[in-house]
Amino acid sequence: MLTIKDINPNLINSQYAVRGKIVSRAQELEAQGRKIIYCNIGNPQALKQKPLTFVRQILCLVEYPPLLEKPETPKLFSKDVIERVKFILKENPSGTGAYTQSAGIPFIRKAVANFIEKRDNIPSDPDKIILTDGASKGVQAALTMLIKSSRDGVMIPIPQYPLYSATITLLGGVQIGYYLDETNHWQLNESILVKSLAKAMEKGINPVAIAVINPGNPTGAVLSYDNIQMIINFAKKHNLTILADEVYQENVYSEELKFYSFAKVMYDMNETQTTLFSFHSVSKGFFGECGHRGGYLEVRNIGTDAFEQLIKLQSISLCANVDGQIVTYAMVDPPKEGDESYDVYVTEKQSILNALKEKAEILGTELNKIKGISVDIPKGAMYAFVKLDLPYEKGIDPNTMSDEELLKYNAQRDFNYCLSLLEETGICVVPGSGFGQLPGTMHFRTTFLPPKEEIERLVVLIRDFHIKYVDRLRSY
Amino acid sequence: MLTIKDINPNLINSQYAVRGKIVSRAQELEAQGRKIIYCNIGNPQALKQKPLTFVRQILCLVEYPPLLEKPETPKLFSKDVIERVKFILKENPSGTGAYTQSAGIPFIRKAVANFIEKRDNIPSDPDKIILTDGASKGVQAALTMLIKSSRDGVMIPIPQYPLYSATITLLGGVQIGYYLDETNHWQLNESILVKSLAKAMEKGINPVAIAVINPGNPTGAVLSYDNIQMIINFAKKHNLTILADEVYQENVYSEELKFYSFAKVMYDMNETQTTLFSFHSVSKGFFGECGHRGGYLEVRNIGTDAFEQLIKLQSISLCANVDGQIVTYAMVDPPKEGDESYDVYVTEKQSILNALKEKAEILGTELNKIKGISVDIPKGAMYAFVKLDLPYEKGIDPNTMSDEELLKYNAQRDFNYCLSLLEETGICVVPGSGFGQLPGTMHFRTTFLPPKEEIERLVVLIRDFHIKYVDRLRSY
Repeated sequence: MLTIKDINPNLINSQYAVRGKIVSRAQELEAQGRKIIYCNIGNPQALKQKPLTFVRQILCLVEYPPLLEKPETPKLFSKDVIERVKFILKENPSGTGAYTQSAGIPFIRKAVANFIEKRDNIPSDPDKIILTDGASKGVQAALTMLIKSSRDGVMIPIPQYPLYSATITLLGGVQIGYYLDETNHWQLNESILVKSLAKAMEKGINPVAIAVINPGNPTGAVLSYDNIQMIINFAKKHNLTILADEVYQENVYSEELKFYSFAKVMYDMNETQTTLFSFHSVSKGFFGECGHRGGYLEVRNIGTDAFEQLIKLQSISLCANVDGQIVTYAMVDPPKEGDESYDVYVTEKQSILNALKEKAEILGTELNKIKGISVDIPKGAMYAFVKLDLPYEKGIDPNTMSDEELLKYNAQRDFNYCLSLLEETGICVVPGSGFGQLPGTMHFRTTFLPPKEEIERLVVLIRDFHIKYVDRLRSY
Repeated sequence: MLTIKDINPNLINSQYAVRGKIVSRAQELEAQGRKIIYCNIGNPQALKQKPLTFVRQILCLVEYPPLLEKPETPKLFSKDVIERVKFILKENPSGTGAYTQSAGIPFIRKAVANFIEKRDNIPSDPDKIILTDGASKGVQAALTMLIKSSRDGVMIPIPQYPLYSATITLLGGVQIGYYLDETNHWQLNESILVKSLAKAMEKGINPVAIAVINPGNPTGAVLSYDNIQMIINFAKKHNLTILADEVYQENVYSEELKFYSFAKVMYDMNETQTTLFSFHSVSKGFFGECGHRGGYLEVRNIGTDAFEQLIKLQSISLCANVDGQIVTYAMVDPPKEGDESYDVYVTEKQSILNALKEKAEILGTELNKIKGISVDIPKGAMYAFVKLDLPYEKGIDPNTMSDEELLKYNAQRDFNYCLSLLEETGICVVPGSGFGQLPGTMHFRTTFLPPKEEIERLVVLIRDFHIKYVDRLRSY
């Protein structure tokens, strides 16, 4: 019988905190009848965000084409939606029922290329675009391709989204962490990059790629144009492939900040030698269609022979699910002014984005009022990475600890904090140690996805809990 | 810039012939305006099989719940479908838009367990069932878990479906091929199993699992109860995990033969020590919903700690797409007698299965009339693995060749045959070497999915081509 000793050690060693022990405990409590506020994961529709009417009308009709022939249909669906579905079925006559090309349905890949061209005012090649089951599968495919041996390392931000660390571990590669600069709104810092690369190379690690998440998960930061330029120059200098995780590109909540894609900055720099993978998804933004597992990757500056290997990799799993491909199409080619569904689309979109902005602001401002808690108010994405300053237990002097000891000690401390928060308030957040953090610091990640009233309640619950928790710590 | 020399060698070495060079060439020809008959892949709806009304009505409504409130809806949808969709949305209020639990939506896993209990009259545990993006992803997850090092081997049939060989290579494990017995309707043979295992162990390989495809792909064979019993005893004796690929369980076309699940036979044998993974899919059977990427795996006799690792692996990709999960639900809990949609469901189902049976018969019978072609008329699945006896070129004596030389030589020969068949007739089949075959033999795999008229035309095209091709070979 299969037991833990028979299992791939890389799997055993991989960790995915976003669905880890705290979440299991939350599910247990929920099964016992407790009300849980799930702030552990960017899953908007589980937290009552409504799907967009445009997207769902398309899916509805494309799943059941006989409805197109019914006299009632024009009363029930927007005219442009009906035209769209006819177009989808003309371009892809087998609808949602058949495997597609391994890279995805050609007309949708063309639509993605158009979207990139319009967004960035740069050319994009549909034959270098692959439709994927969410961005996660795209990232996993890229890493599968890039990690050749247990010496190969991938630079990942700390804190990072644990998809990266888990996948690298699973593939038997090495993580090369680089700290994001919390004192500078979590931007990347060149000297930190240089130092972490040098340290890895001293250990005999062969760095093959650098992953960047922009806007940031878990940090909520939006990278500046200059910062992206610096990263591209750094990657070029050290011959690193760039993995640009841009799934939160629609989630920018500040007037002063703007999302710049790596593809755009690279094009402006006339950089044609550094390989770039960009990832996007239907799960985030204002779509929030996590359950449909749709997304795409675009590759630039890659050898034809290398790209063919990526297509072969996709072919082994046949293709991404077709509904997810169609949601991706709806994302990259939304209703236009004059279309019957346009006004509703814009209203729904703005209402979701405005609410997210407002909730990020409330969450950040209110948490910052609590002594011992501080947070860079998120300007992007769906998360706040909240810093905890907790008193040390009696007899503990952090100055006598090594970095490793400190990390381990604080991992236990932020885990305990999050577990108590869950047990006492029903709020489910993820310990900072699940994402990585500077030795000596402690955090938790929370989403700001729940409805506004719940966010307002949540900050009060966290405040009351935090005060009691700190008192308890002091009394030990 | 990333080129082939930077790519994971395991990826470079993996081969997936079902979407390999012949298929790429077919797509090229099609883009040039040639009509191609795609018999390379089990993709029923791409070959004009209609989706089931019941399935698509459910998906239609579940994608766009506001339709449930419209006065027109009861006229457009069956009453039981409307009730089902209300039930789905009650059990899973976020519908298709949110990530689910990593293992899949709980009520659907319960429905799968009920399905297995009814099918086999045995107990099934919903907490040991995981909903997957098609069976492929399930197989990949199991193999990821099982292959610990480059010494670990997995026994796979020859011929096999190349998902297995490709995934094992990708994971850096070893394939241990065992030949299926073409002279005995492609059943498994104990002495062949024993021999191939012994040979692998002599080479220092550590066998961890045995994969069995029943009904067979590419063979179309249906394994007998006794054969399955023999395999379970063999696996038990050698402490091998069994991977039972049962995606064609509805595709049995003979009155005398019956599908037996490994779970059922194992239960009858009271075997509680051998770990079993069973895989099923919505892509085959009479559903043919390939594009929805739905399926499940069930595990029996596994340590809790080992199973937890599998759940963690699933969690890294979050969850299977929700539409696929819902199609799986429709598959395992179809309309019941008395439901409004029952009659249409049964009619559609029978019409698809009867047509497949008839087409398998026509294809097999007609191909067997051609000199130099022979085939075991498929009793299951969607494929025929057709044997070619081609004259050798002048000066070539197969008796002077080693097995390895023979395999290589015939791989070139069946590739050339399939490529010429494609170029001259537009028929796209897959060379036998893509699945593996006994040294000295040659085959191709074809589906019998195209409409009956096309199958009738196809056998004539193959006959005319084959005669000319053999003449050409003789003239060299």
